Amino acid sequence: MSRAPALRVVLVRPRNPLNIGAAARAMANFGFDDLKVVKPYAPVWRETVSAVGAERLVLEAEAVPALERAVRDCHLVVGTSALRERRLERPLLRLPELAAYLKQRPEVGRVALVFGPEKTGLSNKYLRQCHVLLTVPTSPGCPSMNLGQAVAVCCYELARANRRLGPRRTEAQPAPTFRENKQLMRHALQVFDAAGYLDFLPADQRLEKVRRTLLGWKVRRRDLALLHGIFRFLLRRLK
Amino acid sequence: MSRAPALRVVLVRPRNPLNIGAAARAMANFGFDDLKVVKPYAPVWRETVSAVGAERLVLEAEAVPALERAVRDCHLVVGTSALRERRLERPLLRLPELAAYLKQRPEVGRVALVFGPEKTGLSNKYLRQCHVLLTVPTSPGCPSMNLGQAVAVCCYELARANRRLGPRRTEAQPAPTFRENKQLMRHALQVFDAAGYLDFLPADQRLEKVRRTLLGWKVRRRDLALLHGIFRFLLRRLK
Repeated sequence: MSRAPALRVVLVRPRNPLNIGAAARAMANFGFDDLKVVKPYAPVWRETVSAVGAERLVLEAEAVPALERAVRDCHLVVGTSALRERRLERPLLRLPELAAYLKQRPEVGRVALVFGPEKTGLSNKYLRQCHVLLTVPTSPGCPSMNLGQAVAVCCYELARANRRLGPRRTEAQPAPTFRENKQLMRHALQVFDAAGYLDFLPADQRLEKVRRTLLGWKVRRRDLALLHGIFRFLLRRLK
Repeated sequence: MSRAPALRVVLVRPRNPLNIGAAARAMANFGFDDLKVVKPYAPVWRETVSAVGAERLVLEAEAVPALERAVRDCHLVVGTSALRERRLERPLLRLPELAAYLKQRPEVGRVALVFGPEKTGLSNKYLRQCHVLLTVPTSPGCPSMNLGQAVAVCCYELARANRRLGPRRTEAQPAPTFRENKQLMRHALQVFDAAGYLDFLPADQRLEKVRRTLLGWKVRRRDLALLHGIFRFLLRRLK
């Protein structure tokens, strides 16, 4: 029997140190303690006035220069979004469905929940790096949540639903981590480049195409060596 | 078929105007718009920097001098508490149970959810005026939630569960309001005074005894006239 996956909260470019503190406090309230912050603006990001009782969590939080660095050991990257105008080909979950979704994926040992900056939310640049999009169902009249409150609601929901759903059914081979997926994508792109495949597309569109395919595939970790072997073989042939 | 009860959020003596704004914003996010504030500290309570998109809700919120004024037209008053050292004889609900509890009580047309001051939470003085106590299940290491986040989590849960549970089964005679209950209690106490019943108890303990009994009873609204009639009759006899 497999437990609920470990949760990491990732805040991308938060503007307000109070919100970092509030996010950390909410995580502590619901028993989570793995926080990473991507490109925080000021050195004051550790000033977390509202994080009563959560200081340790904030002090241990790591600030990293890129989303990739924050999620590379995660098996699933979930990007939160109010989904106003964005259209991205990723599965979309509503928060009340997230725990059941995770329960069916015992290969996910660690999941990253990624939150964007207060004013804008996650841009497509960041959402593209996510396997799945998550939205909190809100009122059309006031859809956009405060960052600290969005983190609180997500942590509450996962703690509540995990308690209700219980442990996951089977132990499974873990999924490839974000970093392993990225290595696979890079290798696949080398093959495409060498073959001239899709060379009419700009590089970023080609990357997105490969990424979408690979993220949707559910490559098993044990398939990685096989795929890299095929890519190596193809590259030798194409040169 | 009866809809979910109307929700009123009541903040008792909030210290930080940001929290009032944050509470209002969370309410708006989840489609609620009835906010009252009891004895706010400063005239700055309307300064709600974080209430993007929720300004109307805050401007329409009424500041009142006592909890009683905020809940007198409510049929059920729910006091939130982290329940550290308090022991009060009231039914205790955990947040994930609240919506199902309300679903079984179609006589509740309007429910007040009462939140205490940031540092201390609701004191027994306020909790005693509540029919039911509510707690958000949190981690023992960090049980006390930020006010704005507590409101957000409660609003999320009610919106989520109402959607899942659907409308309530039957239309029912509404319960007495807080004000009607209070009139009934006052009348009952007059009878007790006249009869010398429980006169060895201090007034506040006698009040709490009557209140606990009446709040637990589920007096129907149509019984009110009958009970007042009995009390009047008894009072005339006892004089």
